[in-house]
Amino acid sequence: MARSGAARPEEIRRHNLGLLLEQVHRDGELTRAELTQRLGLNRSTIGALVAELSELGLIDEHVPTGNERAGRPSHVVTPRVDGPYAIAVEVDVDSVVTAAVSLGGEVLIRSDHTLPSTGNTPDDIANRIAADVDAVFESLPVGARSVGIGVSTPGTVTPSGGRVEHAPNLEWRDEPFGAILTRRLPKGIELVFGNDANLGALAEHLRGAARGFHDAVYLTGKIGVGGGLIVDGKLLTGAGGFAGEVGHMLLDPAGPPCHCGSRGCVETYVGEAALLRLAERTAAPSRDSVAEVLRAARAGERAALRGVRGVAVALGRTIANLVNLLNPQAVIMGGSLASVLELCRAELEAELDVRAMSEARREVELRTAGLGDDSSLMGAAELAFGPLLADPVGTAGLGESA
Amino acid sequence: MARSGAARPEEIRRHNLGLLLEQVHRDGELTRAELTQRLGLNRSTIGALVAELSELGLIDEHVPTGNERAGRPSHVVTPRVDGPYAIAVEVDVDSVVTAAVSLGGEVLIRSDHTLPSTGNTPDDIANRIAADVDAVFESLPVGARSVGIGVSTPGTVTPSGGRVEHAPNLEWRDEPFGAILTRRLPKGIELVFGNDANLGALAEHLRGAARGFHDAVYLTGKIGVGGGLIVDGKLLTGAGGFAGEVGHMLLDPAGPPCHCGSRGCVETYVGEAALLRLAERTAAPSRDSVAEVLRAARAGERAALRGVRGVAVALGRTIANLVNLLNPQAVIMGGSLASVLELCRAELEAELDVRAMSEARREVELRTAGLGDDSSLMGAAELAFGPLLADPVGTAGLGESA
Repeated sequence: MARSGAARPEEIRRHNLGLLLEQVHRDGELTRAELTQRLGLNRSTIGALVAELSELGLIDEHVPTGNERAGRPSHVVTPRVDGPYAIAVEVDVDSVVTAAVSLGGEVLIRSDHTLPSTGNTPDDIANRIAADVDAVFESLPVGARSVGIGVSTPGTVTPSGGRVEHAPNLEWRDEPFGAILTRRLPKGIELVFGNDANLGALAEHLRGAARGFHDAVYLTGKIGVGGGLIVDGKLLTGAGGFAGEVGHMLLDPAGPPCHCGSRGCVETYVGEAALLRLAERTAAPSRDSVAEVLRAARAGERAALRGVRGVAVALGRTIANLVNLLNPQAVIMGGSLASVLELCRAELEAELDVRAMSEARREVELRTAGLGDDSSLMGAAELAFGPLLADPVGTAGLGESA
Repeated sequence: MARSGAARPEEIRRHNLGLLLEQVHRDGELTRAELTQRLGLNRSTIGALVAELSELGLIDEHVPTGNERAGRPSHVVTPRVDGPYAIAVEVDVDSVVTAAVSLGGEVLIRSDHTLPSTGNTPDDIANRIAADVDAVFESLPVGARSVGIGVSTPGTVTPSGGRVEHAPNLEWRDEPFGAILTRRLPKGIELVFGNDANLGALAEHLRGAARGFHDAVYLTGKIGVGGGLIVDGKLLTGAGGFAGEVGHMLLDPAGPPCHCGSRGCVETYVGEAALLRLAERTAAPSRDSVAEVLRAARAGERAALRGVRGVAVALGRTIANLVNLLNPQAVIMGGSLASVLELCRAELEAELDVRAMSEARREVELRTAGLGDDSSLMGAAELAFGPLLADPVGTAGLGESA
């Protein structure tokens, strides 16, 4: 019923430029003929748009070689190799990954750093990121243009200011992380922040396992459980950007106490901490301790398998609630939940059969993440590319230095 | 990230005509100056759009009388009194309401019929509707134009065909209700169907308690529990139109068995059947038996109050899950849930304090339905008006008979 504002003729060209660039960014390579068909515009309009994006230094065009079909081959449009790049940063509880990502989604450079497993302050993390960003700038050719930095954070965060409202596993609450980070970076760099699971959902929708689905859910198991919801092709953010807190959905009012103050939340049954508890491990959650349980479960160890099965049943209940509410085409599992799906799909699907309404249940596919462990990192790059894709002409500075 | 298709100049005028008509339809009366501001278009464009909608017989314009401000008063635009109307039908388990609704949302005629409390077949309901629709046509002036019929059904239903996949409280499953109804109606009438709670959400968003909120949830308590989700200003339908099944969200895996085959669904704690059980009543759910419990609770009867409190606590848990997932600005309570909110707001809010994440919890308002018991009926009218508002020019037949 609601529609966006009235369209004015002068906005159409810019809108169409953004649409075309977005298609090329998503697919990496498209012919003019494909662009003509996808955008529903005529050939001369497509030609003009391609020429303008080319002048802006954003795309390249070439005539395909080795084309064996008869007739004049359609020009191939690709993102420009020396075009603008995004810096993507993924902050996790015990690691920081920093990467330069080109239009088209290619990782040009990346660095992975492991941090102490607990006690990392906003200053610690900001220092690590600043050093890594410096290294990126030094590695890239002189004249390379950055669209800015997208930062994935494991918690609720304000998009532009980077104030971390709550990152339970880092034990941060109301931290001015964005301001701390800005002070350590060269002046004038655009910084934008997002929740890790939301960014994972964005990237899986754009170029991962949820590609082509208008309605999808991304769930990721780390120490806790994160969720990102794609509705009608867009990330569902909610009124204040706090939507998608699947980890604190109630599964049992008499369940174990949760760090959020409630009981029986999804996180008390489904995250990595829950997996270790259900598998009767005493180790704290970490990459190594979780990998050990999953390895043991694959080898058939009974306690480990009981743990994974327990997580699978609770995950099935969680997904059933999401299927009943959102009727998605796909639910994508990342982090340790991808392994849970691989090991115990039958148990998970059986729970879904009982708990989900049959019409919506029939339509949903369960898949592991297409981008593996890099969903949130690639989503952080998308966040940084956002303004350029929304308005390739208006995005400051890019046109000038082309 | 995803955007709709490329905009073409020739579509803009029609798009803007729809936007303008939608504003007038929503507000009932707007000045040209207000329209200019809302649509962000210049005055001459607004003038041309108003003239075209006026020629199409959709709106009227007049100079306000009694205007005491200095300067030339801005013309007032209103929906045309003899403009096209929608027929809205609300099917419930034991009642059928049929109404003619004008642009602007005024009910011109309505008839309310009570049916036997159980055992109504698709044929019974279709016969009732056909007789009521005939009566509507006979009551309205010759030449009055109908945009079609919107039908609200208490279950999952396909929008255009009207196949009822599942209406548990009518005990219908996979019934070709749309086909049965079409055979009884005059040829050529557009029929469109929707789930009652989804339509309630639409109408509450347009002109009820969720007006002005981009993200809202509508919950209604009848025998079961229905939910309609407004996300980013639009109804969330999901991949197949089955989204919003709040009634079958899991609240306790060991809870009472639900008719859906699962256990501990919201409906087993929150609907009218649950209210009667928790209030230790033996009567079957009906208007009268539910009204009796609510009356007794208001008078302070202990068993009745325990029943309402029990529903309020479970409703609080349900809303907490929705707040964590969707971060809405408002949750609107209709049907018997409106009374539950009025009687036990403190218990409900306390549960929300414990179970919902604090950032999203702070932002949400709990309200009773603005349209009272008519939310779904008014939503059915909106469904019928949909094509006209999307394209006032192209909607068949309307232009010709103006």
